[in-house]
Amino acid sequence: MSSFTSQDYVYMASALRLAERGQYTAHPNPMVGCVLVKDDEIVGEGWHEKTGSAHAEVNALQRAGEKARGSTAYVTLEPCSHHGKTPPCCEALIKAGVSKVIASIYDPFQSSAGDGLKCLVEAGIEVQCGLMKSAAEELNRGFLMRVGRQRPFVQLKLATSIDGAISMASGESQWITSSAARADVQRLRARSGAIMTGIGTVLVDDPSLTVRAANFETCGTQPIRVVLDSYLRTPASAAMLGLEGVTLLCCTDNRNSKSLLSSNVEVASFSSFNGRVDVNEVLMELAVRGINNVLVEAGLSLSGHLLERNLVDELVIYQAPHIMGSETMKLVSTPSWTKLADRKDLMITDTRRFGPDTRITATLKLG
Amino acid sequence: MSSFTSQDYVYMASALRLAERGQYTAHPNPMVGCVLVKDDEIVGEGWHEKTGSAHAEVNALQRAGEKARGSTAYVTLEPCSHHGKTPPCCEALIKAGVSKVIASIYDPFQSSAGDGLKCLVEAGIEVQCGLMKSAAEELNRGFLMRVGRQRPFVQLKLATSIDGAISMASGESQWITSSAARADVQRLRARSGAIMTGIGTVLVDDPSLTVRAANFETCGTQPIRVVLDSYLRTPASAAMLGLEGVTLLCCTDNRNSKSLLSSNVEVASFSSFNGRVDVNEVLMELAVRGINNVLVEAGLSLSGHLLERNLVDELVIYQAPHIMGSETMKLVSTPSWTKLADRKDLMITDTRRFGPDTRITATLKLG
Repeated sequence: MSSFTSQDYVYMASALRLAERGQYTAHPNPMVGCVLVKDDEIVGEGWHEKTGSAHAEVNALQRAGEKARGSTAYVTLEPCSHHGKTPPCCEALIKAGVSKVIASIYDPFQSSAGDGLKCLVEAGIEVQCGLMKSAAEELNRGFLMRVGRQRPFVQLKLATSIDGAISMASGESQWITSSAARADVQRLRARSGAIMTGIGTVLVDDPSLTVRAANFETCGTQPIRVVLDSYLRTPASAAMLGLEGVTLLCCTDNRNSKSLLSSNVEVASFSSFNGRVDVNEVLMELAVRGINNVLVEAGLSLSGHLLERNLVDELVIYQAPHIMGSETMKLVSTPSWTKLADRKDLMITDTRRFGPDTRITATLKLG
Repeated sequence: MSSFTSQDYVYMASALRLAERGQYTAHPNPMVGCVLVKDDEIVGEGWHEKTGSAHAEVNALQRAGEKARGSTAYVTLEPCSHHGKTPPCCEALIKAGVSKVIASIYDPFQSSAGDGLKCLVEAGIEVQCGLMKSAAEELNRGFLMRVGRQRPFVQLKLATSIDGAISMASGESQWITSSAARADVQRLRARSGAIMTGIGTVLVDDPSLTVRAANFETCGTQPIRVVLDSYLRTPASAAMLGLEGVTLLCCTDNRNSKSLLSSNVEVASFSSFNGRVDVNEVLMELAVRGINNVLVEAGLSLSGHLLERNLVDELVIYQAPHIMGSETMKLVSTPSWTKLADRKDLMITDTRRFGPDTRITATLKLG
């Protein structure tokens, strides 16, 4: 059994922080960081920035130069052994004379997980795996879910008063949460490969669903905007259709899609599930397109539907300090939950303030 | 203008902590603490335990004995100058030869606030007032509200899921919050002079509304249980009527109250407000009876009504980590709030965990 020293943890933590630098750009690839250590000194650091550019290991080896010889490589993900868009990292590590490789998790994407490490062992390199596994899994939860379960990680954002209302029953509404909370939502968007919403929100709010803040190093890419629009009611004048980045309209019948098609608008047809687009099929299609993380910013109907179908992995609730009372719309519509046993248990993982609002992050317990 | 030293703050903070020892017993009297300091050494400490027993100053003087002479007295409330159930504290301080008195706040209950300090000044004692005023006001917010505004401080407790539901629409319900949260409610009860609920809760839940935990030094007293029961529908078999402590049934017509009367059940008649007992009048009556703090543990109807009438001073919301969905009862019923502008802004003063639940304490902004 592998045992790790406290120094091993320090270096792997560095590698994880490096990996995170790719949070806005690496997808669909995983975020990977690499630290090369020789005689208790960091001689090279690297991370993976985006598809087609060099892998973390190669970047670190380049920085280290000759010092890489005899060093230990800390990598957050098993190095690849296959020729993809770039040459295999294993080959590069062997060639550079690295004497030990410590990986955090196996790469589920290799033809067989562990192949990369095996090829290192065969070259006489000492290999360990499993250091800070949970942190590495958390970092790439989207990538791991896409590869392992063929659907993206689904994060549902909700903005509500402290008593669970999103607008008055009359429909009267305005921003519930503060500008600080909305700025944080921009960060969530920047980390996501796709933003999903429902046709109701498009018709009522006409949102743009773009990453507006210039503070994110997204290399100019925008998440795909995904609209669940069973009967293709999105007007050609909808704001998001004219914005930079791709919009995918998901319907059950795309015969009347001509007027909507343009260079950055795509219409796709899916099976029907109780009269609406089967959102599970849409998620699977997004996985095929390389989307690791989907952020849902929708109204009570789609939000509730995703919860009813157990398709939400994480809730991010922004609670504004207001009591809005009973003459209001609730934040999710879940007509099938009629018994107390239908409720969903949450595991709160983080609570913090954004301006006057509280952000609660929670995962759904398997029930 | 008075100026205080950092040592002054240290001793007044001690006096405030001493005062707080009376939190379960002092009411209807205010909580008062006193520290006597001579040559930078505490020579006497005292607090007020309960009505009829010695005041904080007298207790401190007793502990100090001869050392009181020439000392400085730190008192959280202006010493009394009147003969009440006990002799005036001013007299005792003068007699003991105290040379300086620092008070936190004036006593609003004296015939004229400041009389106590005036009488000390006349005896040649140096006097200062205003040290840690906000903390002293917060400590005795109930007492100050009763004396200043002729009604108790009203704390509304709510227990809800994270999406603002208290039960299924069918009425199906059970404890929403954890035992840790419910234990904390016991503490809120122990600090209150009265627990208020509505007839709906009595008929559906038949609660006892007593302080059950043996951990509170309440000297065996129970808060008055106050039931808003316009048409006197409380059954003679209701659990709380048979329990230790007084139950006050508030109706609009007490003609049919005979069957309910017993040594610990009282029926009182109040004006009608839109067909129900005028809760404002009930609160005024509770103030007359010396209640400083009322804890409301009621259903959505009374809770909402108090909010609509601006009679809630503090909300204590226990949020359980569940999403209960749309087929549920909301936590308050506020039929008169039909516009977004009707919502109430909260100022969150504290957020903490009790087991899996989050307790949010908030005051209502004046709107």
